[in-house]
Amino acid sequence: MTDVRLERLANVLVNYSTEVKPGQWVGILGDVMALPALREVYKEVVKAGGNATLLIGDSYMERYFLREANDEQIAWLDPSQTLYYEQADVYIRIGASANTRALTSIPGKRMQKIQAARSSWLDARLDRAARGEMNWVGTLYPTEASAQEANMSLEEYEDFVYGATFCDREDPVAAWMELSAMQQKKVDWLKGKQHVKLQGPNVDLELSIEGRTFLNSDGHRNMPSGEIFTGPVEESVNGWIRFDYPSVVGGRAVKGIELKFEQGKVVQASAEENDDLLQAQLDTDAGSRYLGEFAIGTNFGINRFTGSILFDEKIGGTVHVAIGRGYKETGSHNESAVHWDMICDMRNDSEIHVDGDLFYKNGEFTV
Amino acid sequence: MTDVRLERLANVLVNYSTEVKPGQWVGILGDVMALPALREVYKEVVKAGGNATLLIGDSYMERYFLREANDEQIAWLDPSQTLYYEQADVYIRIGASANTRALTSIPGKRMQKIQAARSSWLDARLDRAARGEMNWVGTLYPTEASAQEANMSLEEYEDFVYGATFCDREDPVAAWMELSAMQQKKVDWLKGKQHVKLQGPNVDLELSIEGRTFLNSDGHRNMPSGEIFTGPVEESVNGWIRFDYPSVVGGRAVKGIELKFEQGKVVQASAEENDDLLQAQLDTDAGSRYLGEFAIGTNFGINRFTGSILFDEKIGGTVHVAIGRGYKETGSHNESAVHWDMICDMRNDSEIHVDGDLFYKNGEFTV
Repeated sequence: MTDVRLERLANVLVNYSTEVKPGQWVGILGDVMALPALREVYKEVVKAGGNATLLIGDSYMERYFLREANDEQIAWLDPSQTLYYEQADVYIRIGASANTRALTSIPGKRMQKIQAARSSWLDARLDRAARGEMNWVGTLYPTEASAQEANMSLEEYEDFVYGATFCDREDPVAAWMELSAMQQKKVDWLKGKQHVKLQGPNVDLELSIEGRTFLNSDGHRNMPSGEIFTGPVEESVNGWIRFDYPSVVGGRAVKGIELKFEQGKVVQASAEENDDLLQAQLDTDAGSRYLGEFAIGTNFGINRFTGSILFDEKIGGTVHVAIGRGYKETGSHNESAVHWDMICDMRNDSEIHVDGDLFYKNGEFTV
Repeated sequence: MTDVRLERLANVLVNYSTEVKPGQWVGILGDVMALPALREVYKEVVKAGGNATLLIGDSYMERYFLREANDEQIAWLDPSQTLYYEQADVYIRIGASANTRALTSIPGKRMQKIQAARSSWLDARLDRAARGEMNWVGTLYPTEASAQEANMSLEEYEDFVYGATFCDREDPVAAWMELSAMQQKKVDWLKGKQHVKLQGPNVDLELSIEGRTFLNSDGHRNMPSGEIFTGPVEESVNGWIRFDYPSVVGGRAVKGIELKFEQGKVVQASAEENDDLLQAQLDTDAGSRYLGEFAIGTNFGINRFTGSILFDEKIGGTVHVAIGRGYKETGSHNESAVHWDMICDMRNDSEIHVDGDLFYKNGEFTV
């Protein structure tokens, strides 16, 4: 029998996050490891009257491609997937891992090359989403590997995931709507504000949000969600920030990252572990040394770091910034093949001032 | 470690059956149950320089769709798959079953409706293949379910499958080329011939092949293969034939079929088991009482009936005919929604004469 929490998650993804309507073209994407979740989502899509395209991948094949594909193969874009990204109405991705470290030995430059080749798919999805032409959501199906990454048993990790997505409650949709209302108040307060200053043991950074929009991330694109975010004015970022949580990219954990910004640009960067990957990401293109995102995590259902960015960046009491691509809806015009979130704990001796007013202190909003 | 015979099969499919060339667009299709085979084929496609599209399905979702989809959903054609069938260069399908009887309770009419909705994909593949624009092959990955259907253990069934595909030999491609050369001689000999007469304990049938072409089925579209086949002149078939092997259609085995033909048409038909299904198939449409195919199986690696037509129809020492749709490349113009192969043993006291010459005796060619 299927875990009732998984059934609820499928319902949330299809009927709350992406609001599938009869006749819509719905892509269901995920690794074969996510099969039980893919099946539940598929059922909900059919029930909602949607037309499903399955895009099931396999990490073993992906790894083989990462290792062995030649330049022509890397540059090739599957025309059927291009058509999907250009025309479909809904994108539901269910991540699932058999081994979160399986890509450790793949060179960062190669990962980046493949990402870059497929950036038009990401562009199409995000651009069309910004124009209201595509609804999308990404989530994670709990596996032994993700549990292991998080130092938990599978049962504990399932509790964690379904807790974070509110699917341990009878009516997760109601809970998401409540969080959404709380966040909307903060977003409304931030309207028209200009200057943000972050201070604390891990950060001394200022940035401008003049003319930019904060978005209320309430479970429509990420499940779980729970953050408000914007794209800072690209050249306005100055100062430094240290990320005490490891940042996992392409299966490799980059630890102890410190970045120094001058006029928006990362002018100094170091990591205690996997520094080569950090440097490769920063060197990807013109936009990868600038911030595309500044965000505040609000989900107190996520009470611990687990090495999965989907959850980590929403941890209540943290902020995160992302180098690279910004979201156009925020006003950001930073373009890049990279979008890499890094998380900074604000729960101790930390403050955010907005236009001189104390907005946030030790992990809690103060307005 | 992967079964070396599966590695050989993947090599045969990619480099012999479909001859994947650098830069070609290659679809790899199959159920998640076929994952080990899909992975090996994927590797071979990448090695050959092909660009792979994965089309992985799931029988659980398929069944849900068969049961629950509404008319609009059934009529919907995934545009990305349509594009694939219209433009791709190669199609490699790997069948694999978790339960060969799982569709028993789905009404035949509903199955037909869904088949009919997607017939343009089949048309595109076969038409483009006939024009040399698409190479395709279908095979089967051995599972417990298929072994069970064949009354074998999985190990025995694997031996059977890899024996039938010659992948139990070190160089299966050489074996296929040898079979191909042998069959080509028979096909060449048959060119320009007119009259075929089959006689034996199970058959007394004559038919005309005037103006028709025999095709050499040597592992390029079916793996395994091993047959030569044509479409007989539709109105030329006279006599009777008994099929001692059961014919499985829609998961039901029809046993002890006897057919009597007059001027091409089945005028009398009976089956010892599931006769109603036989009658329903014959009554489907105008073409379903005429033969679309006459073929001689040549694969002596297939030494037993297993209930899977992919293997059964190739059994060395048998002939088969199919009621219904013929293949245009043979010259057949019989059209029908039905194409149902029935297999007749010719290994005892049986002969085929062509234009009066003895062509085949007791399961072996004599020319």
